[in-house]
Amino acid sequence: MKPEPSLRASDVHTAHLTHRNVTAKHQIGSFICSRVTLLRACSTTAPLRQGVPTSLWKLGRLNHIAIAVPDMEKATALYRDVLGATVSEKVPLPEHGVYTVFVELGNTKLELLHPLGEKSPISGFLQKNKSGGMHHICIEVDDINAAIADLKTKNIRMLSAVPRIGAHGKPVMFLHPKDCDGVLVELEEA
Amino acid sequence: MKPEPSLRASDVHTAHLTHRNVTAKHQIGSFICSRVTLLRACSTTAPLRQGVPTSLWKLGRLNHIAIAVPDMEKATALYRDVLGATVSEKVPLPEHGVYTVFVELGNTKLELLHPLGEKSPISGFLQKNKSGGMHHICIEVDDINAAIADLKTKNIRMLSAVPRIGAHGKPVMFLHPKDCDGVLVELEEA
Repeated sequence: MKPEPSLRASDVHTAHLTHRNVTAKHQIGSFICSRVTLLRACSTTAPLRQGVPTSLWKLGRLNHIAIAVPDMEKATALYRDVLGATVSEKVPLPEHGVYTVFVELGNTKLELLHPLGEKSPISGFLQKNKSGGMHHICIEVDDINAAIADLKTKNIRMLSAVPRIGAHGKPVMFLHPKDCDGVLVELEEA
Repeated sequence: MKPEPSLRASDVHTAHLTHRNVTAKHQIGSFICSRVTLLRACSTTAPLRQGVPTSLWKLGRLNHIAIAVPDMEKATALYRDVLGATVSEKVPLPEHGVYTVFVELGNTKLELLHPLGEKSPISGFLQKNKSGGMHHICIEVDDINAAIADLKTKNIRMLSAVPRIGAHGKPVMFLHPKDCDGVLVELEEA
C-alpha cells in the first residue's frame, strides 16, 4: 500500500477532522457559499449559468511538483550539476517545517523539500520512502475561496478548514488525495 | 517502503540488466561517446569546453506528470467536470500497455494512465497503490543521445539499453529512480 502523503506543519495543525474543525469548516463553507450566491445575485454583467458555478473560478497553470528528498545537497547537485538546471538557494521555512530548493524547468518548477526540525510534516513520508519521492502537485487557481466552495459541493474533501498562506505568500488549500486518484493536490491562488 | 515504480511494456522488455543487455548498453554507450567525441572534434564553430560536455545537450521544459489511475472515467471526470480542465479523448496505446488521457494545464500536461491488457506495466504499481498515484515526470531534452552519454559518465543509471519511441512518437529514456531521489524521470527529445 502506498503511504498517505504527509502534510506540512500548518496542515497538521488544521487538517484533523475533529468535530470542532468540521463545524468550523461547515461555517466557512456556508459563508463562502453565501458570498458566491451574493456575487451571482448582484452581478448584472456576468452571465448567469445554471448548475455548479464553475465560471466563478478557473484552474490555471501547474505551479510546481514537490519532491521530498532525504539529502538536499545531493538532490540539488543532481538537478544543478548533473542535469544542468538552474536552482535556487536553500531556503529554511521553519513555519512549514521544511527546507526548500526550487528547480527551474522553464515552464514550471520542481520544489525539493527536506525536513526542518524534529516535527517536520514530511519526516513520516521520508521514513516510508527512504529514497524520497513525489509528494504533491500544486496547480494555480484564480480565486481560492470560490474554488473551495465549488469543490465542496462536488464532494471533494479539503485537508484544512480554511486556506493557509503557503511558501509563496499566497493562500493555498490541499485536496484530499483519496478524492484525487491518490495524488495530494495543492491549489494556490495565483 | 515505497514500491518501485512500474515501467511501461517496452521498458520491461529492455530494462532488465542481463549480461546481454549490459553488454549491449556498453556498446551503445561507446558508440554514443564516440559520436560525441567526433562531434566535438569536428566542430569548428562551437566553443570547446573542458570537463563534462553538458553544453552538448540541454534540459528543457516539463513535458508532463504521469498519474496512474484505477478508474479512467472517474479520473477524467475529476479533471474535466470537477476541476474544469480541458482533457483529451482516451487513447489506447497497446504497444505500451496503457490507455492515456492528457489533461491540459496551460504550461504543461498531466498524463493519466490506466492499464491496457493483462500484462500492462502499470498493473503492479496500481496493485501497490490502490487509489492511484504519481508514476513519473517527463522532462524534455534537446538531444537524447548526448544526454544519455553525458549522464552515464555521471553514474546515472538508465532503465533500458537504448532510447525507445514514446507515446508522442519521440525518443525517450527513463532514468533509474534510485539515482533521482526516488522519482522515476523520463527524458524525451523535444
